[in-house]
Amino acid sequence: MDATTFEPAMRRALELAARGPAQGVNPRVGCVILSPAGEIIAEGWHRGAGTAHAEVDALAQLPNGASRGATAVVTLEPCNHTGRTGPCSEALISAGVARVVFGTDDPGARSRGGADRLRAAGVELIGGVLHEEIEGFLADWLFAERHLRPFTTLKWAASLDGRTAAADGSSRWITGPVARERVHEQRAAADAILVGTGTVLADDPSLTARCADGALREHQPVPVVVGLREIPDEAALRRHPQSLIALRTRELGEALHELQQRGIRSLYVEGGPTLASALVAAGLVDEYAIFLAPTLIGGPRTATLDLGVGSIDEQRRLELRSVERLGDDLLITARPVGHADEPGT
Amino acid sequence: MDATTFEPAMRRALELAARGPAQGVNPRVGCVILSPAGEIIAEGWHRGAGTAHAEVDALAQLPNGASRGATAVVTLEPCNHTGRTGPCSEALISAGVARVVFGTDDPGARSRGGADRLRAAGVELIGGVLHEEIEGFLADWLFAERHLRPFTTLKWAASLDGRTAAADGSSRWITGPVARERVHEQRAAADAILVGTGTVLADDPSLTARCADGALREHQPVPVVVGLREIPDEAALRRHPQSLIALRTRELGEALHELQQRGIRSLYVEGGPTLASALVAAGLVDEYAIFLAPTLIGGPRTATLDLGVGSIDEQRRLELRSVERLGDDLLITARPVGHADEPGT
Ligand SMILES: NC(=O)c1ccc[n+]([C@@H]2O[C@H](COP(=O)([O-])OP(=O)(O)OC[C@H]3O[C@@H](n4cnc5c(N)ncnc54)[C@H](OP(=O)(O)O)[C@@H]3O)[C@@H](O)[C@H]2O)c1
Ligand SMILES: NC(=O)c1ccc[n+]([C@@H]2O[C@H](COP(=O)([O-])OP(=O)(O)OC[C@H]3O[C@@H](n4cnc5c(N)ncnc54)[C@H](OP(=O)(O)O)[C@@H]3O)[C@@H](O)[C@H]2O)c1
Repeated sequence: MDATTFEPAMRRALELAARGPAQGVNPRVGCVILSPAGEIIAEGWHRGAGTAHAEVDALAQLPNGASRGATAVVTLEPCNHTGRTGPCSEALISAGVARVVFGTDDPGARSRGGADRLRAAGVELIGGVLHEEIEGFLADWLFAERHLRPFTTLKWAASLDGRTAAADGSSRWITGPVARERVHEQRAAADAILVGTGTVLADDPSLTARCADGALREHQPVPVVVGLREIPDEAALRRHPQSLIALRTRELGEALHELQQRGIRSLYVEGGPTLASALVAAGLVDEYAIFLAPTLIGGPRTATLDLGVGSIDEQRRLELRSVERLGDDLLITARPVGHADEPGT
Repeated sequence: MDATTFEPAMRRALELAARGPAQGVNPRVGCVILSPAGEIIAEGWHRGAGTAHAEVDALAQLPNGASRGATAVVTLEPCNHTGRTGPCSEALISAGVARVVFGTDDPGARSRGGADRLRAAGVELIGGVLHEEIEGFLADWLFAERHLRPFTTLKWAASLDGRTAAADGSSRWITGPVARERVHEQRAAADAILVGTGTVLADDPSLTARCADGALREHQPVPVVVGLREIPDEAALRRHPQSLIALRTRELGEALHELQQRGIRSLYVEGGPTLASALVAAGLVDEYAIFLAPTLIGGPRTATLDLGVGSIDEQRRLELRSVERLGDDLLITARPVGHADEPGT
């Protein structure tokens, strides 16, 4: 049977998936069950960690035996993992489903393998239906599952000569209001926002995503601080609407993996230069958001420190994705060369 | 009589002016003499230092007495200065010219005052005809005369984080071929090219303007080196098609004035960081040509050093004039705030 036959059902499954929560450890998944005649007889979707997976949710709509010989059309390869719920592969097999159609493979280290399990049980498998659309829809979750860390955007705001502050440390303001507003939009679009203890101790930032009038935006990123030093009890971060995650380590790969394990798919890093440089040097940056103001500052406060580039052939080449004028400033968006085609938020 | 009456004659004078040499201490000037009835009876232009000024050149076309009661239409206010030639104001007065029409004032400290002298002698004066066009045509010369230094463009090529080399000093290549070709075009467009002794001793650059195939371009900027140290006899600069100017000083204001006195109207500065920073700190930069490559380098080799910016309110604000993509690179052209409207090359 031709895979395109199932595209309308898959499109419906995708609509259902979109009803689920866009954050967290679990992906948004939708499922429809088709009778042997091809009619939709049940629909389901996943409502977030701890609730039924989409396939189980859909099967539960049907009386006993009604799914025998049916086709399950599901956006993501059914899981093969026993977590807070049983594996979907087993649920589909016990329900007597004859065919499973899915959009994209589950890359999860623990959850993958559902398709193999189903095939071994004699179920017909058709994968890759609406593949690109579903890859786009799940981009942030897929990236985090595949790389075992969040999609990580490093932001800084600097002068044209790459300084983030004057010699005395003063830096208000280098960029203008339009650029600063964009930063708040980018904060609101991320699951979490990361700084080092250095920034917390120097600036006591609130790390909230605000509107131009100062009001909090609807979505707030989880504030995360990395570093060994203690965060003061009276730090503004502790009054953030989301609870603070303090990672008392300097092992950045591990820190990012820990965040992914906690359901953080996209991370917005706001400095300072020590943390930024360590992330660049470790190859942990997926996208750069470099705000450049039309100004020259000179002096010691560079946006980057040592990046481990001893000789010019070790320079860290990027690919420009866009250059935007924001008021008087520029926003340069770039990704590491060779990394530019990764799906990302 | 309405000034616009003289626009056609002024346009002709401007055509004549354009036949003169576009470099040197003297401006390009053109002149036509109109009979009392308004017919062109003579034309003249200036062919460069040591030759007749445009007015004198035009008057010389006429038999004795033929200019009595005539109108001289000249692009620039007639000079009042006795140099290698006598003052044009006196020549016009002795020729019995009744009216002088000119395009823009002569800002020259020694040459100005011709209009006053003519008026005092009873000659009718009409200034400002085709004023903007003529200001544009003479922009580089006017700038140099008004500021007593060349229009100075500071160029550097850096990574997005403002580094011009890796830690070991290697810097080939940060920018790509399209950007490098633009640098050669900009060299060819300048009267002179300036570096510090540091760059000569470190890189032994040729400072020629070349085509992509390595051939020399038609116009070559005069190479200029500033600094106290000796330039080696075997330096590549000494084989430049134009003779080297070595200014053994660190007084940059004086050095630039000296260049203007030698007829350099536009100067292209190609580093290094010591000279660049000293020029910025002294407020001697009129335009910035900042080439940014999509790469990160970090480390100690910054494009700028100390610019005398202690606190953020001392930052050197620029106005962006353009942002161009050149291959993979960006060229940011900017001018100091408040300086952006100066005419320039
Ligand atoms: N212009 C901007 O965009 C911007 C943004 C943010 C901050 N800033 C400025 O940056 C300054 C703070 O600079 P900073 O560099 O100290 O701040 P930082 O990078 O936020 O914090 C540095 C700290 O991060 C911790 N860390 C975690 N992993 C690390 C690793 N792998 N390597 C090294 N350190 C690691 C260390 O903390 P422990 O020592 O506790 O282990 C280190 O001291 C402030 O003045 C602030 O204003 C500017
Ligand atoms: N990426 C680029 O665009 C670019 C362009 C050019 C050079 N570079 C690199 O820059 C490095 C050379 O750096 P650099 O900074 O030594 O070269 P530089 O700026 O060309 O020369 C510095 C010298 O300029 C003289 N100077 C004149 N006026 C001065 C003043 N007011 N203040 C201070 N010095 C003054 C001094 O010479 P005295 O000591 O003799 O008085 C000083 O040592 C090389 O490695 C080269 O590769 C990069």
